[in-house]
Amino acid sequence: YNSDLTAVLLLQLMAAGKWVRLDKTTYVDPAGNTRTWESVKRTTRQTNTEADGVGIIALLKRTLHKDCVVMVKQFRPPLGCSTLEFPAGLIDEGESPEAAALRELKEETGYKGEVVGVTPVTCLDPGLSNCTTQIILVNINGDDMENINPTQQLGQEFVEVVLLPLDEFQVKIDELLKKEKIIVDAKVYIFGMGMAQAFFKPRELPVLKQ
Amino acid sequence: YNSDLTAVLLLQLMAAGKWVRLDKTTYVDPAGNTRTWESVKRTTRQTNTEADGVGIIALLKRTLHKDCVVMVKQFRPPLGCSTLEFPAGLIDEGESPEAAALRELKEETGYKGEVVGVTPVTCLDPGLSNCTTQIILVNINGDDMENINPTQQLGQEFVEVVLLPLDEFQVKIDELLKKEKIIVDAKVYIFGMGMAQAFFKPRELPVLKQ
Repeated sequence: YNSDLTAVLLLQLMAAGKWVRLDKTTYVDPAGNTRTWESVKRTTRQTNTEADGVGIIALLKRTLHKDCVVMVKQFRPPLGCSTLEFPAGLIDEGESPEAAALRELKEETGYKGEVVGVTPVTCLDPGLSNCTTQIILVNINGDDMENINPTQQLGQEFVEVVLLPLDEFQVKIDELLKKEKIIVDAKVYIFGMGMAQAFFKPRELPVLKQ
Repeated sequence: YNSDLTAVLLLQLMAAGKWVRLDKTTYVDPAGNTRTWESVKRTTRQTNTEADGVGIIALLKRTLHKDCVVMVKQFRPPLGCSTLEFPAGLIDEGESPEAAALRELKEETGYKGEVVGVTPVTCLDPGLSNCTTQIILVNINGDDMENINPTQQLGQEFVEVVLLPLDEFQVKIDELLKKEKIIVDAKVYIFGMGMAQAFFKPRELPVLKQ
């Protein structure tokens, strides 16, 4: 396997919408063969950024409350149902990922947060699209006056805020999925799996070491 | 917000490829307004399954070695570069998610695994597509004869296997990203963040409780 041989030769437009385009991508595979692939792209990616959007892992910290992850529930037309996701949105022209994250968090949840971490650019569904996101870690001081009664700033969007305790994150998601017909975002569920893996697996005996 | 009001009224085909189609989706928003959305779908989803594909979090356990997550690196035409991902693939006709996961793991990495967990159906990029995946947790007994010298069964695919120690997962990914021009899948990076969150955050003082 030598990925240095690979390269995209040609993008042929199959269809262009206002927000999304579908291309036929002609490329050279690692064996030197020329092949094609159907690729989806957003038309909205800004110049000077490698990411289409941001996702926000926002931790709400309040005195005498458990730390909670601030989640959003909303109807998603491509799926035809509602989803449970991290707050998220596209990056505007000239906007930094951090600024986009704080703006989207404020719009979708009403909370004012503080950025405490930023991931590299990550891909979402690399066999299908070039879509990318950066995950922004945000702390919210829930005792702060402006975060006591947070007010969404949504305009045309409809988003329900859901607070999930960090220490029971995966369990609470499983409960929600049993109760409601919603689809959970893979990133959300896997974040929960990562925490569960770390909390519980070190105490288990590995299969071969019993 | 009342998601019970929402419904998809109409799917109008904008373009159909062999693998991917682009639709204009007409739907009713929670305020009762009729709106449109551009939606991407794979044409390959099997009947009797809600998921397009599976991702595999495979833990390689070997005597006298650290437990490792089995990862794959490959050129992805939509991105025009190589990615670091969990092994993954589409579900074949009549195949269970568990069987698809063990098949894809064997094809892409050569390892024979054992399923130890299956997630609900999760969405990958719900603002763009209806694409869904189930994550299958797999243990690999690396001391087993057939896993000592695993042989990929790839056909037309080109996939490089990368083993990353579970206990330094995020650090090793960050090192790889510094060294090579690759894009990491969001699910991979967030799994690492979940583990890091669980390991380190309980020892930190929350912002308001110092």
